Amino acid sequence: MVNIRSATRADIKAVHGLITELAVYEKEPDAVIISAEDLERHGFEENRFDCFVAEEQGTVVGMALFYERYSTWKGPTIHLEDLYIQPQHRGKGTGRLLFDSVVREAKRRHAGRMEWTVLEWNEPAINFYKTYNASLDPEWHLGTLNSAQIQSFQ
Amino acid sequence: MVNIRSATRADIKAVHGLITELAVYEKEPDAVIISAEDLERHGFEENRFDCFVAEEQGTVVGMALFYERYSTWKGPTIHLEDLYIQPQHRGKGTGRLLFDSVVREAKRRHAGRMEWTVLEWNEPAINFYKTYNASLDPEWHLGTLNSAQIQSFQ
Repeated sequence: MVNIRSATRADIKAVHGLITELAVYEKEPDAVIISAEDLERHGFEENRFDCFVAEEQGTVVGMALFYERYSTWKGPTIHLEDLYIQPQHRGKGTGRLLFDSVVREAKRRHAGRMEWTVLEWNEPAINFYKTYNASLDPEWHLGTLNSAQIQSFQ
Repeated sequence: MVNIRSATRADIKAVHGLITELAVYEKEPDAVIISAEDLERHGFEENRFDCFVAEEQGTVVGMALFYERYSTWKGPTIHLEDLYIQPQHRGKGTGRLLFDSVVREAKRRHAGRMEWTVLEWNEPAINFYKTYNASLDPEWHLGTLNSAQIQSFQ
């Protein structure tokens, strides 16, 4: 039996673990530089994100982390930053329960759009999003300056 | 002589006009559903974004609109939502002045990353971003549910 609920401070270590697992899956094992303490401060003191967790027999096995963004076309939107379910807990509809919860939250907040990104090789995720008739657009490329580039900028 | 400064409420109509011009350039002429009044409320009452404008002889000719996002890998980041300079005012380094201002703001806020998206066919923009040694990644595809899909979700 899977239970979906809002994350609490007590879930932070588990959520941080899932973030790290997702980074490994996305072939960026060293990308996570924030600590569980950072995550707790960002989420529960600075209110930078919201998070749903999926719990199975008292253990957190998945999560959906999201926050509000702004579109100059559509106004406030909901951005789904991470959606992750541990491999051994997949195939039971848990991802769908989590994603549904975020869409309902977007509906409750009257979001002008809900958006997320997906890696082009992540076929299971792409097929999952297609079941929602989501638009999946390869035309927008992601530009970034990293922290070192920013801090050395004059 | 170009002057870069933070946008004020008095600039909202001009900024809304530039947003619409940019949507036309991006081949989505009907995409802008928010009004200038919405934009003013979102920016100056709800503080959903910050904006720099470029002024030439008392007229706003360009803008850079940005806000904070959250990365589960890097912590708080700066997202550049729109960067636009009117065609007749290009070629004088105004885009560079605006982009530089946002990078400096990212530096001031110790952002873990600065990111934006660029359309794959927008070669002048891509070449511009390359001069900053920015990473430009086609691997992440953008998923979206639109407002109608969200509101009809059960």
